[in-house]
Amino acid sequence: MSVRTPDPNPGWLTDVELAETRRRLPLLYVEAVPVRVDGMGQVTEVGALLRANSVGEITRTLVTGRVMYGETLRDALFRHLEKDLGPMAFPQLPLSPVPFAVAEYFPLPGISAFTDERQHAVSLAYVVPVTGTCDPRQDALEITWMTPVEAASDAIVSEMEGGRGVLLRQALASVGALR
Amino acid sequence: MSVRTPDPNPGWLTDVELAETRRRLPLLYVEAVPVRVDGMGQVTEVGALLRANSVGEITRTLVTGRVMYGETLRDALFRHLEKDLGPMAFPQLPLSPVPFAVAEYFPLPGISAFTDERQHAVSLAYVVPVTGTCDPRQDALEITWMTPVEAASDAIVSEMEGGRGVLLRQALASVGALR
Amino acid sequence: MSVRTPDPNPGWLTDVELAETRRRLPLLYVEAVPVRVDGMGQVTEVGALLRANSVGEITRTLVTGRVMYGETLRDALFRHLEKDLGPMAFPQLPLSPVPFAVAEYFPLPGISAFTDERQHAVSLAYVVPVTGTCDPRQDALEITWMTPVEAASDAIVSEMEGGRGVLLRQALASVGALR
Amino acid sequence: MSVRTPDPNPGWLTDVELAETRRRLPLLYVEAVPVRVDGMGQVTEVGALLRANSVGEITRTLVTGRVMYGETLRDALFRHLEKDLGPMAFPQLPLSPVPFAVAEYFPLPGISAFTDERQHAVSLAYVVPVTGTCDPRQDALEITWMTPVEAASDAIVSEMEGGRGVLLRQALASVGALR
Repeated sequence: MSVRTPDPNPGWLTDVELAETRRRLPLLYVEAVPVRVDGMGQVTEVGALLRANSVGEITRTLVTGRVMYGETLRDALFRHLEKDLGPMAFPQLPLSPVPFAVAEYFPLPGISAFTDERQHAVSLAYVVPVTGTCDPRQDALEITWMTPVEAASDAIVSEMEGGRGVLLRQALASVGALR
Repeated sequence: MSVRTPDPNPGWLTDVELAETRRRLPLLYVEAVPVRVDGMGQVTEVGALLRANSVGEITRTLVTGRVMYGETLRDALFRHLEKDLGPMAFPQLPLSPVPFAVAEYFPLPGISAFTDERQHAVSLAYVVPVTGTCDPRQDALEITWMTPVEAASDAIVSEMEGGRGVLLRQALASVGALR
Repeated sequence: MSVRTPDPNPGWLTDVELAETRRRLPLLYVEAVPVRVDGMGQVTEVGALLRANSVGEITRTLVTGRVMYGETLRDALFRHLEKDLGPMAFPQLPLSPVPFAVAEYFPLPGISAFTDERQHAVSLAYVVPVTGTCDPRQDALEITWMTPVEAASDAIVSEMEGGRGVLLRQALASVGALR
Repeated sequence: MSVRTPDPNPGWLTDVELAETRRRLPLLYVEAVPVRVDGMGQVTEVGALLRANSVGEITRTLVTGRVMYGETLRDALFRHLEKDLGPMAFPQLPLSPVPFAVAEYFPLPGISAFTDERQHAVSLAYVVPVTGTCDPRQDALEITWMTPVEAASDAIVSEMEGGRGVLLRQALASVGALR
């Protein structure tokens, strides 16, 4: 690691460095379940992203990404919402940095409900209302909106990457929308 | 109590009936701490109502009121926000009915941090961002906006009715804005 | 209502008075999901009560009961835990009076996930570890202990009175034990 | 970094590696506020550790430490409680991995209420009742028990390292013990 070379952004790891770090430390993530709410604050729809994973399969996922060095949780959450939902989604960030759930992802299954074969990641998860238009960018193909009942169904839950179906159910429970 | 007289709205107690009930049962209340937030969801200002109490003293209070028979918590919260802040406040109701605090008001001091000489009341308290213009109605004289630091100060806390200064501090703590 | 008769315990309503009140006001309840935890605080088992309801059917329910005039939420929770689980259950009461869920019970279905044909009740629900021996008293026949997966199953959820299966799932979600 | 040398425990960084990582990534911490509770679950005392910091000053702190690669949050919390309070403290770990607060520590002041000159750390904080005898080990000199009112006082809050006095107040607020 050329750590002595001046680096304009020390939080930006090279791919090799990131690969090494992933075998050494738990990485901190933020995760968001995008929702639409009615005028009374009640969740009416839940969004999931369709994405082609590394082996070309289509899976469902949530808004998710790493927290960078020097970045606040709010800034990280906002950055990943914009990256995954586009600049016109107008997310309403949570008042509190306390998440509705903390998801612990391990490379091997069985330790928790969540797996990530690349790394040990700990993710702080939030329910985030969006009031604008979502236009997925990067590797996400599209966003699908579902009712809370559909979102909590076994069919949807089993399609979600890394156990995130469980996180979706926890999200719904946290807003009183799990039946 | 003329309970046998047909009543178009059974949740509407007469003053005599309400007075009796207050000596018999804990009454259910909802309470809101109005806040203003910036684009990142961070609380920048906290609102408190100035009100003349029954003996003519000016005190500070929060948005507060009873839940009626047949009314949901959301409906009660919305009704009292509109009553106390006017129809143009545009409150963003919480996603979850779980309050940041449950305040227990007793007629006698010492049982909890909260007192209400009229009754035993249990109040579910929420932090509610408002995005419009507040125009207090009814018996509230005006709404004062303060920074989180001012709102948590001993001076303000001691001016609040029934121990609600403690509730204000709990509200600030729940959104990570208590210093 | 003989409200003018001196009453040594004003929080104690006669049956007639309670019946009247139930048509006039939302009643405040506390509710507990008894659990067993391992040495690391993880929920291993969840308890549900078997009870014969008013028409003789066997249903499942949770620890539940009314908050009396002058009683704190903690005292009410402790009283109902002792009433339903016996004096040797040794419950660990929650540190915080903030519930994991607020269940709104209405006489008519469709307003919320919860129904109670007798009344409008608002219930603050807590997960409570018990460390001793449970010996149901009063009208409860027995307590059944289940794994979190069993407790969240459609079969168990559908057997629970008044929609409390949903509350059970919310309880499991709140402790990270819903799959 | 000698990352190519086989390492029996890849989560164990050398001092040099840890120093490098601290300039590149936010590190994940867990933090505990030890408390004593009465039979009704109410917090009666709060513990703070006295510690000599790197320049020999005596400061107050909480139970705190890093989450290692492959370690669950519960395991990390238990390990640091044992390290700081000794093996006979008998802590009751929280039912839920959701913290009462997320403290963001930055090397420079002003970004949040918390600073850590060594690193950017994100800490999940929990209130943990202890039922046994605390016997601080390692670099902690002793544990001081205080009432909630003392613990929240300006004097104590200002003595706490890295802004943890704010975290202490948030802890008290989360259990309804902040006045």
